[in-house]
Amino acid sequence: MADASQLFNQRLDLIARETEALLDRVLGPELLAGELARPARLIEVMRYAAVGGGKRFRPFLAVEAAALFKVPLASALMVGAALECVHCYSLVHDDLPAMDNDDLRRGRPTAHKAFDEASAILAGDGLLTIAFDLVSRPEVHPKPQVRIDLVSALARASGAGGMVGGQILDLGAEGRFTDGKPQRLDRHEVEILQGMKTGALLRFACLGGAILGEADAARRDALDRYGTAVGKAFQIADDLLDLEGDPATVGKATGKDAAAHKATLVSALGVVEARRKLAEFVAEAEAALAPFGADAGVLKAAAHFVADRRN
Amino acid sequence: MADASQLFNQRLDLIARETEALLDRVLGPELLAGELARPARLIEVMRYAAVGGGKRFRPFLAVEAAALFKVPLASALMVGAALECVHCYSLVHDDLPAMDNDDLRRGRPTAHKAFDEASAILAGDGLLTIAFDLVSRPEVHPKPQVRIDLVSALARASGAGGMVGGQILDLGAEGRFTDGKPQRLDRHEVEILQGMKTGALLRFACLGGAILGEADAARRDALDRYGTAVGKAFQIADDLLDLEGDPATVGKATGKDAAAHKATLVSALGVVEARRKLAEFVAEAEAALAPFGADAGVLKAAAHFVADRRN
Repeated sequence: MADASQLFNQRLDLIARETEALLDRVLGPELLAGELARPARLIEVMRYAAVGGGKRFRPFLAVEAAALFKVPLASALMVGAALECVHCYSLVHDDLPAMDNDDLRRGRPTAHKAFDEASAILAGDGLLTIAFDLVSRPEVHPKPQVRIDLVSALARASGAGGMVGGQILDLGAEGRFTDGKPQRLDRHEVEILQGMKTGALLRFACLGGAILGEADAARRDALDRYGTAVGKAFQIADDLLDLEGDPATVGKATGKDAAAHKATLVSALGVVEARRKLAEFVAEAEAALAPFGADAGVLKAAAHFVADRRN
Repeated sequence: MADASQLFNQRLDLIARETEALLDRVLGPELLAGELARPARLIEVMRYAAVGGGKRFRPFLAVEAAALFKVPLASALMVGAALECVHCYSLVHDDLPAMDNDDLRRGRPTAHKAFDEASAILAGDGLLTIAFDLVSRPEVHPKPQVRIDLVSALARASGAGGMVGGQILDLGAEGRFTDGKPQRLDRHEVEILQGMKTGALLRFACLGGAILGEADAARRDALDRYGTAVGKAFQIADDLLDLEGDPATVGKATGKDAAAHKATLVSALGVVEARRKLAEFVAEAEAALAPFGADAGVLKAAAHFVADRRN
């Protein structure tokens, strides 16, 4: 396990660096070189939100899942960059005053604090839009069918039935559209909410790797189950961090969930039971990888990393 | 010309009705029937913004351009519905307090007024996202290459180099990111701004029809030029309406451009010269359609409609 963990860290670092370089390129020189003048301020805010930060865990999952099928690194990285654009847009919009009203993100002022609300909204829109541009590019895969499958899966993971839907359920659970009083969600409701808000995109990362690799149904399904379990583990770990983490390490305010009476599995189950579920999801994720044998060592280590992370 | 104008009105009505029915379906039963629970409030706001209103001029352009190549109506309508989702999302976001702060749209309260800001932001995000889902569906075209070309062109028309970029240039011209004082843009700068903000999506509508029809380069280019000219005419007509129109007919507040010292071609050129340019763009649009001969009668009439519209 020590070797797998070491290899995992190396791969996470490598993929983060490569993703960084790719985002720097597609949100930089390329965007500025188009046929129409690209507005400098918009690009500045898009870059502020998406370049220079984050563990790039979603790109990592996409690249590692794709690597199981010997997909070229450059192809998988482009899908990873698209994923990161969607993830970063969601952070920018979720941080807005009308939403979670957060001032701090990754230890820096949020986009609307560093710039202004209008620029933050538009930069989010621009990041979401460019994600579909990136996934549709020929360098992602020679077969258009593969690229269109990625577009479709990404849209569904990100939209009303996925991430965006999860965010509005979350606001609704805070009582935002009713009497302002937080609703007490049961465990099942919390799982649906979190499966949409956070899970759908993590799941797409793994499934995206399988689509890129033109995986057969069994392997595609295995990666789907892995992604689903990792997503659940990720969310519990996130909620535990919010409860117990140090803001300096976490890079954003903590204790916000409890203050907002947010619906989390930790609040629904208690810390001890939540930790037990976390271990269960990690085991589920590992088990799903069985068809890949030793090739999946890094993805197995990733499931443990998700459970143990400190930021 | 009287016949073409009559036929144009019939086609505009028909396509608006069909688009309405399609949006009602894809933003209704279909969205509710997915594997994940679809949040009711989100769908309610998405429907408020996109179902039940508008001339559906973008779908009309896409359908009529596609009809030149005998593309089945259902295919072109799906692209039209995607276009309308992008258009409506842009209206919802542009109307937000942090942006243009509008209370009225199509004679009804804007989305954030009828609901709340968070719901409006998320409904916009959901509409933008589902547009890419719609365009990637098999019923759009049997060839995945055609669908991926549509995804790519739509993303570019809507993103930082197109519509979103135009909106931030517009806010910038109001002095929003500097001293709050409106900038005096020259004619060329106004044309770039409007070409991105409004023109790019109208142009995509025409180009999208050509992509669907697998047009050769010459015909694709002709529709591109038509779409560009129609976009320019559309924008001048819009600016004239804001200056001279009756809010009750227009369905939104008028006189806002002048009050905000907005950069428009009308303010840059004066009303008389602007009307002359408008006629010039209509002639340009007509001329671009030459390769299609009599088949393009309805699209020619559309260019006149754009120039003469009262709302």
